[in-house]
Amino acid sequence: MSKTFEKLQPYLDKVMALQTARNLFEWDSQTLAPIESTDYTSKVIGILADEYMKCLTCDEVKKLVKKLKEDKEQEELTSNEKAIIHELNKTIEELESIPPQEFREFNEFTSLSNRAWVKAKKENDYSHFAPYLKKVIEFKKKFAKYRAKNNQEPYEVMLKDFEECFGIKDLDSFFDKIKKEIVPLLKEVAKKADTVDKDYNFLKYDIEKQKEFCKFLAGYIGFDFNKGVIAESAHPFTLNLHNHDVRITNRFIENNLESAIFSVIHEGGHAIYEMNIDDSITMTPVGKGTSMGMHESQSRFYENIIGRSEAFWTPIYQKLVDTYPENLRNVSLKQFIKGINKAEPSLIRTEADELSYPLHIIIRYEIERMIFTEDVDIERLPEIWNKKYEEYLGLTPPNYSQGILQDTHWSYGEFGYFPSYAIGSAVAAQLYAKIKEVMPFEEYLREGNLLPIREYLRDNIHKYGATKNTNQILLDVTGEEFNADYYVKYLKEKYEKLYEL
Amino acid sequence: MSKTFEKLQPYLDKVMALQTARNLFEWDSQTLAPIESTDYTSKVIGILADEYMKCLTCDEVKKLVKKLKEDKEQEELTSNEKAIIHELNKTIEELESIPPQEFREFNEFTSLSNRAWVKAKKENDYSHFAPYLKKVIEFKKKFAKYRAKNNQEPYEVMLKDFEECFGIKDLDSFFDKIKKEIVPLLKEVAKKADTVDKDYNFLKYDIEKQKEFCKFLAGYIGFDFNKGVIAESAHPFTLNLHNHDVRITNRFIENNLESAIFSVIHEGGHAIYEMNIDDSITMTPVGKGTSMGMHESQSRFYENIIGRSEAFWTPIYQKLVDTYPENLRNVSLKQFIKGINKAEPSLIRTEADELSYPLHIIIRYEIERMIFTEDVDIERLPEIWNKKYEEYLGLTPPNYSQGILQDTHWSYGEFGYFPSYAIGSAVAAQLYAKIKEVMPFEEYLREGNLLPIREYLRDNIHKYGATKNTNQILLDVTGEEFNADYYVKYLKEKYEKLYEL
Repeated sequence: MSKTFEKLQPYLDKVMALQTARNLFEWDSQTLAPIESTDYTSKVIGILADEYMKCLTCDEVKKLVKKLKEDKEQEELTSNEKAIIHELNKTIEELESIPPQEFREFNEFTSLSNRAWVKAKKENDYSHFAPYLKKVIEFKKKFAKYRAKNNQEPYEVMLKDFEECFGIKDLDSFFDKIKKEIVPLLKEVAKKADTVDKDYNFLKYDIEKQKEFCKFLAGYIGFDFNKGVIAESAHPFTLNLHNHDVRITNRFIENNLESAIFSVIHEGGHAIYEMNIDDSITMTPVGKGTSMGMHESQSRFYENIIGRSEAFWTPIYQKLVDTYPENLRNVSLKQFIKGINKAEPSLIRTEADELSYPLHIIIRYEIERMIFTEDVDIERLPEIWNKKYEEYLGLTPPNYSQGILQDTHWSYGEFGYFPSYAIGSAVAAQLYAKIKEVMPFEEYLREGNLLPIREYLRDNIHKYGATKNTNQILLDVTGEEFNADYYVKYLKEKYEKLYEL
Repeated sequence: MSKTFEKLQPYLDKVMALQTARNLFEWDSQTLAPIESTDYTSKVIGILADEYMKCLTCDEVKKLVKKLKEDKEQEELTSNEKAIIHELNKTIEELESIPPQEFREFNEFTSLSNRAWVKAKKENDYSHFAPYLKKVIEFKKKFAKYRAKNNQEPYEVMLKDFEECFGIKDLDSFFDKIKKEIVPLLKEVAKKADTVDKDYNFLKYDIEKQKEFCKFLAGYIGFDFNKGVIAESAHPFTLNLHNHDVRITNRFIENNLESAIFSVIHEGGHAIYEMNIDDSITMTPVGKGTSMGMHESQSRFYENIIGRSEAFWTPIYQKLVDTYPENLRNVSLKQFIKGINKAEPSLIRTEADELSYPLHIIIRYEIERMIFTEDVDIERLPEIWNKKYEEYLGLTPPNYSQGILQDTHWSYGEFGYFPSYAIGSAVAAQLYAKIKEVMPFEEYLREGNLLPIREYLRDNIHKYGATKNTNQILLDVTGEEFNADYYVKYLKEKYEKLYEL
């Protein structure tokens, strides 16, 4: 091992430990912590964040990283170590641009802000959340200014945090293509929506049985309960301490069968990615999914390409019918598949069908751009939100909870995150085109044998963690960089077939 | 504020944050973490412990604490600050005597060792746990040697960790009194055990209903769910992040009604102590119960003096009957009170009656003394354990899980802890004698009004945290230091009345 790298190791360990502790506090605050703990615990979280930052940006670490970037030192490094130094350098640059005190305040504040969002959503009270949101946006604007290089737009800075291969230009062109190709298709499909009978989905589904079936589903797709746990929270999410401790949450709605089912498959996809990170890089700066875009590609690959296919349900649909015979006895597999793929404008992003889904993202993308380029009045955001829903989806949210308060992201200051979902869907379609070539994909699903698919994803994507970026992975696996045409083609083929257009 | 103390504050904050993080990992590992996470997460815990130690024993902190102990500086300190400095100095002395690397190894190891105990207990396999126990003991022997002052016995060092007011001499004299007074009483009572019909307790009690009733009980005695949560674990325990986040666990046994009921009251007593710590000292080195002895006095005050009294059950027994009418319809309150106070030799400490309870402690005390003064073969511990159970209680454990593997403490290296339970019982009796003088205690219980009792404990004991030690508290509240006579008197009166001796 390089002697310089060896000197860096204790700092890497300390940073990893502090980050893992922060992750555990985040998990705990969203799943279990008592309501009055927030003010006190946020102080602890702030101090840990501060220590994390101090350690990463101390003179010794900066000196070592600078040295390790020199050609001579690079020669002595393994490829994993090179990736660690690259990642570390990026993080240090990011942190160095923000004054420590402000970084600490921000971390303390977002924990309060998230708690305020939970309350606001529960009580359908935007005015409770608005002052928090305003302050979070002020933080983010300030931070983006600190960090911008070469007159970069603030929003561009934020986008690159989640997907370094995509900026405003890339997204504009991607979303233009979607609008041009998918909006007309959605209109065609929506006309036929009435032909799909989905009433069964909104009957009463006992929650304990939902929990049991979702647990079965998680295991069925490959979630390893020896390395993971499932809990409940207001908004489903995935969080990992390392590759042997990956946690997902779910939420259950009594009169909606699909909601929890596709949440667990979605989060399960994220979790399988993290569980498959190689042991040699877990607990290092590259021991994680390479980007949110790639992460979402895996969750949406599981949720949509696998989870909404007839082949996937062929061996297990009867089990679902047996769980709820009173509701599903007369619902055929064919009707169920049509039901879970029913495309029509709706209000809730996480429950949207594959076809209208990107429109939810485009709305958020456009609002985020407005927030960070114009001086939008935060009080007016619900109005803007509702107008865009009318414009793109022809629907008006009846309240805040089903409108602007539906997503958790902004309460944490995660602006620039949403596009990752659409990128993810498109990356998933591009990967799918390749996988179908190299294995009898549908046959495996029909046999209930998901292992070869999981192993392919592990060996070609997951195990590398963040040692390769999205475009490098796509290039190595599919022979080309990101290409949204696969996504358009996939959606057209799927929906034309389903709706016999 | 003293300028020197002000300089110390950031270090206190950091130490508090690291300790809180360690506590959260401990909670998580015992209630939720997936089985394969241990090896990886224990590395994180080790690093946090190491940072904690480094921060507490760094030159700057030592210099500041030393200075703050000078008369001139002490004049500028509030009484809470003085207590913080006293506590800090004690901890630094303790840590300084152990080499950092060994301290870190120990912390990493006990997390593995606890996991091994869980498995060993589950599988009734002492041989799986023995090598871990052996290594934990080696650590503790070494540490005690490092820390011993003036030829102190190693076991004395350990005892004082949990209760600084009690050493081997105090305990020998306390336990001698117990043996002399209580053993004959237990024999008398045991003769009449057959007259108590307790078969109802071992019928089938639906676990979901147990959970609901225990949740009710926790709230009834004053556990504040806005500041606390209840989860499940192999062995019930209490853990707090601060006074606004106090957590207890319980475990449920289908064919034992009492087990979970008295566990939740016991842990609830611990939790109420921590919830009542004053806001001005929470998250400081003295923002915690003053000693394990005093802590156990509060849990046992709730469990035994309140929870096993007829007055306590008078307003709520019908609710229990209504929860399980098929089992309890024909069990009168009188029979139930006799049942929950039935005294007879038994195998499991946590389920033992008040009268035989101290014998379980004496057995552990004697074995711990053997471990740390003689060179006992660890393989022989089950044999020694079983012999002592035969000698004191006339019973032989049929397996390891109900014998030497029943308690979690040793897996964490918590030797010297057990006597706190007996000290706690005796302190509780001493406090009880006083409380009965100052308020209509029984009347309050009969009215279902536990608030005045809780307020009295808060204002006279809880709020002070560790700013006063056990004997100071007893002196201030009862007018005298620890006096085991109250305990003996309490037990005699209670059991003579119950069994009409």
